[in-house]
Amino acid sequence: MSEAEDIQKMHEAPLVVCLGTLPPNFEILVDKKFSVSTYQLTSKEQFINDLRSGRFENLFAIYAAWLAFGPLPGGLTKDIIEEFPKTTKIITVCSAGFGGVDLEALRSKGISFCNTPTVGAGDVADTVLHHVLEGFRRYSIFESELRNINHTIKTRSVIGDTYTNLRCATGALELNYNSDPIYQFGHVIGSHVNVISPKNRKVTIVGFGAIGKEVGKRLNAIGMKIQYIKRTKLTIEEESELGYDVEFCESVEKAVESRTHCIVLCLPGTPENKWIINKKIIDKMNGVILINVGRGSLVNEEDLLAGLRNGRISFAGLDVYATEPYVNEELISRRDVSLTPHIGSSTVDNFEATAEFCLNNIIKCYETGTVDNLQN
Amino acid sequence: MSEAEDIQKMHEAPLVVCLGTLPPNFEILVDKKFSVSTYQLTSKEQFINDLRSGRFENLFAIYAAWLAFGPLPGGLTKDIIEEFPKTTKIITVCSAGFGGVDLEALRSKGISFCNTPTVGAGDVADTVLHHVLEGFRRYSIFESELRNINHTIKTRSVIGDTYTNLRCATGALELNYNSDPIYQFGHVIGSHVNVISPKNRKVTIVGFGAIGKEVGKRLNAIGMKIQYIKRTKLTIEEESELGYDVEFCESVEKAVESRTHCIVLCLPGTPENKWIINKKIIDKMNGVILINVGRGSLVNEEDLLAGLRNGRISFAGLDVYATEPYVNEELISRRDVSLTPHIGSSTVDNFEATAEFCLNNIIKCYETGTVDNLQN
Repeated sequence: MSEAEDIQKMHEAPLVVCLGTLPPNFEILVDKKFSVSTYQLTSKEQFINDLRSGRFENLFAIYAAWLAFGPLPGGLTKDIIEEFPKTTKIITVCSAGFGGVDLEALRSKGISFCNTPTVGAGDVADTVLHHVLEGFRRYSIFESELRNINHTIKTRSVIGDTYTNLRCATGALELNYNSDPIYQFGHVIGSHVNVISPKNRKVTIVGFGAIGKEVGKRLNAIGMKIQYIKRTKLTIEEESELGYDVEFCESVEKAVESRTHCIVLCLPGTPENKWIINKKIIDKMNGVILINVGRGSLVNEEDLLAGLRNGRISFAGLDVYATEPYVNEELISRRDVSLTPHIGSSTVDNFEATAEFCLNNIIKCYETGTVDNLQN
Repeated sequence: MSEAEDIQKMHEAPLVVCLGTLPPNFEILVDKKFSVSTYQLTSKEQFINDLRSGRFENLFAIYAAWLAFGPLPGGLTKDIIEEFPKTTKIITVCSAGFGGVDLEALRSKGISFCNTPTVGAGDVADTVLHHVLEGFRRYSIFESELRNINHTIKTRSVIGDTYTNLRCATGALELNYNSDPIYQFGHVIGSHVNVISPKNRKVTIVGFGAIGKEVGKRLNAIGMKIQYIKRTKLTIEEESELGYDVEFCESVEKAVESRTHCIVLCLPGTPENKWIINKKIIDKMNGVILINVGRGSLVNEEDLLAGLRNGRISFAGLDVYATEPYVNEELISRRDVSLTPHIGSSTVDNFEATAEFCLNNIIKCYETGTVDNLQN
């Protein structure tokens, strides 16, 4: 088929193939005269066979729902991309992550790519806030013991006297309260872990894009002092647009030297970011609370565990893991970690907004030839 | 002893009696030439006997640590206050609560009273934030299942398919997602409880003093629309000083009519506030998230439980209880509640700051005759 015929067909009924769950509002594509079909991705071989069979004739766009490229072990690789018909103009994925997508191969075929990194930024930042509050206040230990003991004051006493296997949360502050025989206020865990306020403590946000900025807004509201790490320092104007005070920090090492109480990782899982938290940097810490909502590859988990054991890290709040979808068994069993199953942005609002963003980008690409939020 | 002699003695070495835990920084009293002693309160009868025995001669101030008046069943009542020597000028308590203290009897004896309501306001507001995030995002269910299942995606699937005994969190929004056979994003619990973002949802803060304002700051940062209930509306100037947008609301009933998604109780446990959350108001709700960090008496707990059972209330986050220190057994066993053992303000920072505030007030009262933050 000639390219002219291809384009002719495309204008008759351009095809949008939906991988994974059909978007709740897919009718807007139908209204725009697209032909919409779903496709169950099973393996790379089957996908290539089906691309060659002609069933994707007139393909204009692929809409990949959450984790919809999951069945492709190596991701969306060049050899698959080369099989896409020439009519193909855009690939959209409902997630912030784009690891495994060969952006260069797409670009050289003139195919646009869009992910949805900013749509769920606030929801991810709420998840960070949850883990930070757990790190400072340890609500979940108080809740689980209260459900066991059913007595508010006894619960605080038991927590004050036991849990001595937890490391001091506040090594950096050199606080060391003893359990009180008269009255347990609830500020002591295991005689030596102290429940402190996040107020006036320093946090370092590593990666200061859409998510990092939303994180900063929330941690500023609980009174923390914010410093951020980013390849390029924001301009004075950009900093003042944030609506809260920040300081720029050059590196994680400098942050640890500045006695940061908390480090929040909001970076993508690119090769250069691999294991930016490792033994060398952990050995310089003194009771840091570490939060990771970026990717599991950012942290050397064996080093993290050693840091939790020796108290260099007092607490870890994790939404992502090195061995995802599995979680390291020692992490699972520890009480100085809070764990969420990669649900940073998992809200109904985000589920709908990402679908809408992707569908609108498909329509925009068709009508104007441009798309929003390109990664390539 | 004549009053002149009393005053003479007081100037020699005014006595500060510390009930409960000695404040960490009590040396500042010694530096100021106070005589400091501790007293172990056991019963009202013993206290009155000891007051009559003369061992409290020269008493200038009583410093009551957290819960230090606890052993007095009726609180600090008039018949006890009448036994205080005339030299007594100030009673300080390290808590926001002042229920059970006969302020009128203190006033008529010329004794100042100070509690510490604003010192821990930020810490209490952090506890509210924890419960609000639990209400919208249900992190603790995801965490406990992840620790059981050890697989991020399977955890989301199990949560999506089970937990069908939980009521819809978003009745007010009329959302009702089905569990998805292809991919569990983590936004569905038990096929019908939806994990939604707090962003753009309406919260009503009932009681808008120091704590309520700190709560508003935090909930504004997670994108909520804030309305507040207070006896008297703030002036335009006071509202603009908050640093975030608010609307005034006349009553809890009006708030429910306005389809508030969340209600936060930050009120003291006065008689007129008793059971402001009751069956009549709950029957008008549609999936409200209810948070209480004020006092247990604000909520009729039997009505709350009925509301949780029938879905009028989708979630309750509680730091205080009707039957404290015990917690209702049904609350203990439910998964649509988050529970903390009255630790709203329990941080090392607050423990130290309240002690310092009280000690400074004792010194100020002695040196100037005035005190800060009077309730009477």
